[in-house]
Amino acid sequence: MTQNIPRTQSWIGELPGKLRMIDQTRLPEEFVEIDCESVQQVWDAIKRLSVRGAPAIGVSAAYGTVIGVQTETNLSRAGFNQKLNEVTDYLASSRPTAVNLFWALERMKNVAAAIPDASPADVVERLLSEARTIEHEDREMCAAIGRHGESLMPADGGVLTHCNAGGLATAGDGTALSVLFAASATGKKIHVYADETRPLLQGARLTSWECLQRNVPVTVICDSMAALVMREKKVKAVVTGADRIAANGDAANKIGTYSVAVLARAHGIPFYVAAPSSTFDLSLASGNLIPIEERAREEISHSFGKQTVPDGVAVWNPAFDVTPAELISGIITERGVIAPVNTETVAAMIDAAASAQASHST
Amino acid sequence: MTQNIPRTQSWIGELPGKLRMIDQTRLPEEFVEIDCESVQQVWDAIKRLSVRGAPAIGVSAAYGTVIGVQTETNLSRAGFNQKLNEVTDYLASSRPTAVNLFWALERMKNVAAAIPDASPADVVERLLSEARTIEHEDREMCAAIGRHGESLMPADGGVLTHCNAGGLATAGDGTALSVLFAASATGKKIHVYADETRPLLQGARLTSWECLQRNVPVTVICDSMAALVMREKKVKAVVTGADRIAANGDAANKIGTYSVAVLARAHGIPFYVAAPSSTFDLSLASGNLIPIEERAREEISHSFGKQTVPDGVAVWNPAFDVTPAELISGIITERGVIAPVNTETVAAMIDAAASAQASHST
Repeated sequence: MTQNIPRTQSWIGELPGKLRMIDQTRLPEEFVEIDCESVQQVWDAIKRLSVRGAPAIGVSAAYGTVIGVQTETNLSRAGFNQKLNEVTDYLASSRPTAVNLFWALERMKNVAAAIPDASPADVVERLLSEARTIEHEDREMCAAIGRHGESLMPADGGVLTHCNAGGLATAGDGTALSVLFAASATGKKIHVYADETRPLLQGARLTSWECLQRNVPVTVICDSMAALVMREKKVKAVVTGADRIAANGDAANKIGTYSVAVLARAHGIPFYVAAPSSTFDLSLASGNLIPIEERAREEISHSFGKQTVPDGVAVWNPAFDVTPAELISGIITERGVIAPVNTETVAAMIDAAASAQASHST
Repeated sequence: MTQNIPRTQSWIGELPGKLRMIDQTRLPEEFVEIDCESVQQVWDAIKRLSVRGAPAIGVSAAYGTVIGVQTETNLSRAGFNQKLNEVTDYLASSRPTAVNLFWALERMKNVAAAIPDASPADVVERLLSEARTIEHEDREMCAAIGRHGESLMPADGGVLTHCNAGGLATAGDGTALSVLFAASATGKKIHVYADETRPLLQGARLTSWECLQRNVPVTVICDSMAALVMREKKVKAVVTGADRIAANGDAANKIGTYSVAVLARAHGIPFYVAAPSSTFDLSLASGNLIPIEERAREEISHSFGKQTVPDGVAVWNPAFDVTPAELISGIITERGVIAPVNTETVAAMIDAAASAQASHST
């Protein structure tokens, strides 16, 4: 069923090939795909937010690395290595704070470093294979989150989500949206309520578009309407993504998520977080230690191409908030569901995952 | 101090005179006043929302009536009466659901009807006097709400408000904002947090502008940030206006007010409503009986001239929500503060007010 859904990005051809991606800056007004055939084009696409979302950026950077070196097979291996470093350094400069970007580029460089005697042509083949693996792993992660989460969704009813934790941010079906799409695919009658998500409107623009693509009924509301939607019993559950989760389960996510969690508790509605195990940062004991980025005034004061706040008036624009673990009914990971959420249950799932990964990689 | 604040509207000259008003559609980008010298201009100003807010519309309609007949003093009294009816019928067609509009026009017609033998010139003088009285009474109402409410405000701290219950909606300092401005005028260090108030952004555009005019510190936030503002203890109280209040104290107000009330309760912060006694509708036993208007999809999907929701996606746009009395710490009226809020305390204040008005008018 999902084969008709446009992919956030895909590799076209073999070698040399190109990276096709949805230009997310044009949504929802237009559906436009762009083909990147140079590393400059990939860099621009990441920089301009044509592709966004940590996993999706990682996949784009991996394929971007292939694009940057795929026609350099006539170089000596030393020359090729130098070119590879230039390409990865350049791509790393596109979004200086994107952890998945650096992680993916590092993984690509390690592939080349592991086969120092191989020819440039052979290295390029291995790099393409690694990029495909990164994409594949991300898709599997999304699918596993969907499988673990779908049983928590109502058989028939509304589910509220905030921001876009969807396929557009990943190589697969997303995290929170993967849960909703998986529930819908099993025959559950899910109606998505999408908070528009001020200031950048990812819910209005992207989440609703993804639901439309998959024929999952969706209604967009302003963020301030979530409480009324709950009071009128239009939703039976809430699912959001997360950007970073502390060791005790406190979860940082798009600004407004904490508000939704408090409202859900007040209305007796379960509130779930869907996120891969890579989102956990066990070095932070609690969410109080998660730094909250404050973003530009203009995102609020001039966000629709029109000035909406007078000059001289202060604006506060925190990009994230932290939802305390006690408000979270469960965290849905690719390994299973953490519930109840506390330091012990997080450690049981995430430490185990880390050991499993460690033993797998040896 | 407030004499330097531009008035929402004011009568310029004597007879013939004109009505000057702030064009609120141009705020916050530009401060523009428009002078209405014809009844057509007043009608347009109300229709285009250059002036909005129930009390302010009533005042404009009263002065608009004067403008419509002030040069008709050469007519016979019968001809003048006919002209007066044409003018008030026409003005009534500008905002068909605005109760204060009809109330003000009816009051103007009653003035003329009470002096059937007076000359048209004398009637015009009485009409101008009545319009000034309506404006004056509204200003007094605002001031009284401010006096009663200011003692509830913190000596030093943030106060959150939602939408615009300010001077731009009245002839005076507004209702909720009157409380804040009065507290500030007594020397309290009030910092206003203004929810931007999607979809039409009256908080971002108008409330912040009013605070700026009065040198009251203000910070605009997205509606979804109110919970974080409370969690971080940036605000010590919430004050909003109301559009209609039932006999038990349940209060309908701009969509998002209920959300703020639930969040305030969860964070242990008092939530006040400021509204004149004319806002109460004692024929409604509870807020469940207050009809909630649903407004156009485009206010959310195409606000500010840019499409933000894909074609084909449903949007829900309730204009109001109802905050149950049990979440309201007090209702600040021009007669005094109702607290706690329930059917008995509302009846004690509002029935008493009605008797007082009745005895005053005899």
